[in-house]
Amino acid sequence: MSDTVKYLLPDEQIPKTWYNLMADLPTPPPPPLHPATKQPIGPDDLAPLFPEALIMQEVSPEREIEIPAPVREIYQQWRPSPLFRARRLEKALDTPAKIYYKYEGVSPAGSHKPNTAVPQAFYNSEAGIKKISTETGAGQWGSALAFAGALFGIDIQVFMVSVSFHQKPYRRALMETYGASCVASPSMETNVGREILAKTPDSTGSLGIAISEAVEIAATNDDTKYALGSVLNHVLLHQTIVGQEAMQQLEMAGDYPDIIVGCTGGGSNFAGIVFPFLGEQLRGGKKVDILAIEPAACPSLTKGQYAYDFGDTGHLTPLVKMHTLGSTFIPPALHAGGLRYHGMAPLVSHVKDLGLIDARAYKQVEVFEAGVQFARAEGIVPAPEANHAVKGAIDEALKCKQNGQSKTILFNLCGHGHFDMQAYSDYFAGKLTDRSYDESELAMALAGLPSAAAA
Amino acid sequence: MSDTVKYLLPDEQIPKTWYNLMADLPTPPPPPLHPATKQPIGPDDLAPLFPEALIMQEVSPEREIEIPAPVREIYQQWRPSPLFRARRLEKALDTPAKIYYKYEGVSPAGSHKPNTAVPQAFYNSEAGIKKISTETGAGQWGSALAFAGALFGIDIQVFMVSVSFHQKPYRRALMETYGASCVASPSMETNVGREILAKTPDSTGSLGIAISEAVEIAATNDDTKYALGSVLNHVLLHQTIVGQEAMQQLEMAGDYPDIIVGCTGGGSNFAGIVFPFLGEQLRGGKKVDILAIEPAACPSLTKGQYAYDFGDTGHLTPLVKMHTLGSTFIPPALHAGGLRYHGMAPLVSHVKDLGLIDARAYKQVEVFEAGVQFARAEGIVPAPEANHAVKGAIDEALKCKQNGQSKTILFNLCGHGHFDMQAYSDYFAGKLTDRSYDESELAMALAGLPSAAAA
Repeated sequence: MSDTVKYLLPDEQIPKTWYNLMADLPTPPPPPLHPATKQPIGPDDLAPLFPEALIMQEVSPEREIEIPAPVREIYQQWRPSPLFRARRLEKALDTPAKIYYKYEGVSPAGSHKPNTAVPQAFYNSEAGIKKISTETGAGQWGSALAFAGALFGIDIQVFMVSVSFHQKPYRRALMETYGASCVASPSMETNVGREILAKTPDSTGSLGIAISEAVEIAATNDDTKYALGSVLNHVLLHQTIVGQEAMQQLEMAGDYPDIIVGCTGGGSNFAGIVFPFLGEQLRGGKKVDILAIEPAACPSLTKGQYAYDFGDTGHLTPLVKMHTLGSTFIPPALHAGGLRYHGMAPLVSHVKDLGLIDARAYKQVEVFEAGVQFARAEGIVPAPEANHAVKGAIDEALKCKQNGQSKTILFNLCGHGHFDMQAYSDYFAGKLTDRSYDESELAMALAGLPSAAAA
Repeated sequence: MSDTVKYLLPDEQIPKTWYNLMADLPTPPPPPLHPATKQPIGPDDLAPLFPEALIMQEVSPEREIEIPAPVREIYQQWRPSPLFRARRLEKALDTPAKIYYKYEGVSPAGSHKPNTAVPQAFYNSEAGIKKISTETGAGQWGSALAFAGALFGIDIQVFMVSVSFHQKPYRRALMETYGASCVASPSMETNVGREILAKTPDSTGSLGIAISEAVEIAATNDDTKYALGSVLNHVLLHQTIVGQEAMQQLEMAGDYPDIIVGCTGGGSNFAGIVFPFLGEQLRGGKKVDILAIEPAACPSLTKGQYAYDFGDTGHLTPLVKMHTLGSTFIPPALHAGGLRYHGMAPLVSHVKDLGLIDARAYKQVEVFEAGVQFARAEGIVPAPEANHAVKGAIDEALKCKQNGQSKTILFNLCGHGHFDMQAYSDYFAGKLTDRSYDESELAMALAGLPSAAAA
């Protein structure tokens, strides 16, 4: 082969540990607070929701956390995932930049989400748990946990944001194929859901609402735990396998990124590819420009406030300090992809606050345009979420062209778009529309932010 | 890792040649005949439809045919595809059999079809062709050629069997994402289509009709060639990369198949995995039990007649000797997957006639049941077509359990089901129904078989 396009690692090089950024941060992130006492919460407060092993990971200061052998064995089905050099895209853009992408769409559920779904199901299984409740937005996380549940014989109940439940019936079909149950949220199955439906019978739902429903089920049923597909420290931790592999693969290519791009909803795929490189930098390694791309229709990092807020709309979770649009923010139904969470992973927010990363918001029509250009060059149709990262990488490559710079750009192609073809159809039919916010529109939800002063 | 589940080859081991079964057959297959003269056709007769390089492959007696370097470079994006040991399925079945599957769903278009779409686009591109017309049934082939066309800058026009065009709008969206155009067949764009619509305005279409339309476009436009996604010798040839890789991978596993299972529509994915092993056997190697699985709703190998017939409904193609249900056979609209062709690849028909392979027909509800069992054990949701092979492999594994035999079963998981979730939804909703035929129902279409006696 003259021009290598694919960098694969042997199975033995699946990382043996996850990387915990906490160990290398100059200052720790502000702790989660109990909503009543405003005091930092302890492991006991989380015990109704998560098995102990995951709670320990959530608060661990250790740099490396071992990946259990059964998890690595399951990872082996699709990991190490390929790193591709986007030579055909580079040619189409006529850029001197080198573009690499890590492709997480090779997992059985088609995204990066199984990287954390599998260990979460594993630790729950080890703790004897028979049922897990969760939420899902566009459906990537719900399908991933349904897949993992099937492997460990755990019942999975998914609350799917109503607008997506109706727009994406095939995601539900996928979850059911794996044996999970899936209902539209808000639902009549929880107090939170019933209250919201009483006030807003035509609610299109939000991740914040769906989280409340799933948490309520877990908190009120002894045999049931809860799982979250992003935001929390242990979820970001599990995703670091992506960046660790990418680092080894770039070494095979004799390269190192100047720029890393990821899309951000809750922040986990972004953290997964970024944190291992950021850790290198914090330990004295090469400085990398890091760019988080979010949708203009849900602009937490670029337009939100860095403040303590609830993780959910029903206010059942602890308060966490994060970039937030307010827990009552409902993203517009027109938005086709995931990335619809009102907040941001506290760890991602913290590194943004420390000035270690930049953020940028794109409108959805322009990101689909980038996605189609990518598909025609590289052959892979990205998920709408991933199109944000594609657009970010393309724009950086075009800057290189303008400036005559041959930078190395790495981005995370976190999933394929096979279940999102309606959005592509809408894009071609000119039916996709844009929505962005100015500060005044966001003021109301932000005005309701809870106080973080101790009671 | 204690139990290996994945066998990957390094990129350098992508085969350098395709394997041509023709070289090892005890007798050659009967030649295609010109429909008017009933004399064997020559390369010139095919020149309006195919570039010379493909015509030469169609008639080549050489055992090994070189894969051009640019094709191998594109293959490298997803090849060598993984061979998996289905350990979790074996456990679920409690069988002493060893089950391996070659997974072709890792290609950008999600099936084995790009294995031939890419070389076909390449040879057309080398010949200066700017446009290719083709047909597609469930959409796997159309998407694959659309993908390949995008890489080589060739316009692709796809005639999609009407029933699938309407049942599977997302396959069309995928083709359009790659830049191809796609119309429902029968269409008003061809004489054949207009005639059929005049007689049967609500025609649900068939592959035979769509082939006629695509052939007509190519035959009547100088700048346009035609491409077929299965059936022809050169298409089967390109797919042999699957079996060749599987052979190397099984060697890594220290194993060799006792049984090989593939699903058959036109016969190309089946031939792809089977022919390299069959060639070994014909050259004195180990005898392997080979099983072709087809849908009971389109049972060419099990209920068709081995006779000369047209490849298309409009009778624009040569006569080929194959197992056929008659070129006017229209498979029932209820059938959810591909595998809807009235005939069978002449080479597959020939080896069936020689007694080198067996065939079996399954109904679709039972194959979806097998597919769901597979998905819950292995995590991959198979295409409806592939579910036939899954069911075949499961049944053979259960036979091993009954007999206490630890046979090695290899099957081709030729594609994923991400674009077929409506069929899974229908299966769960109890809406999938079955259709099979007894001989008397098939008599009418078979009665119309053309004579092969020279004019």
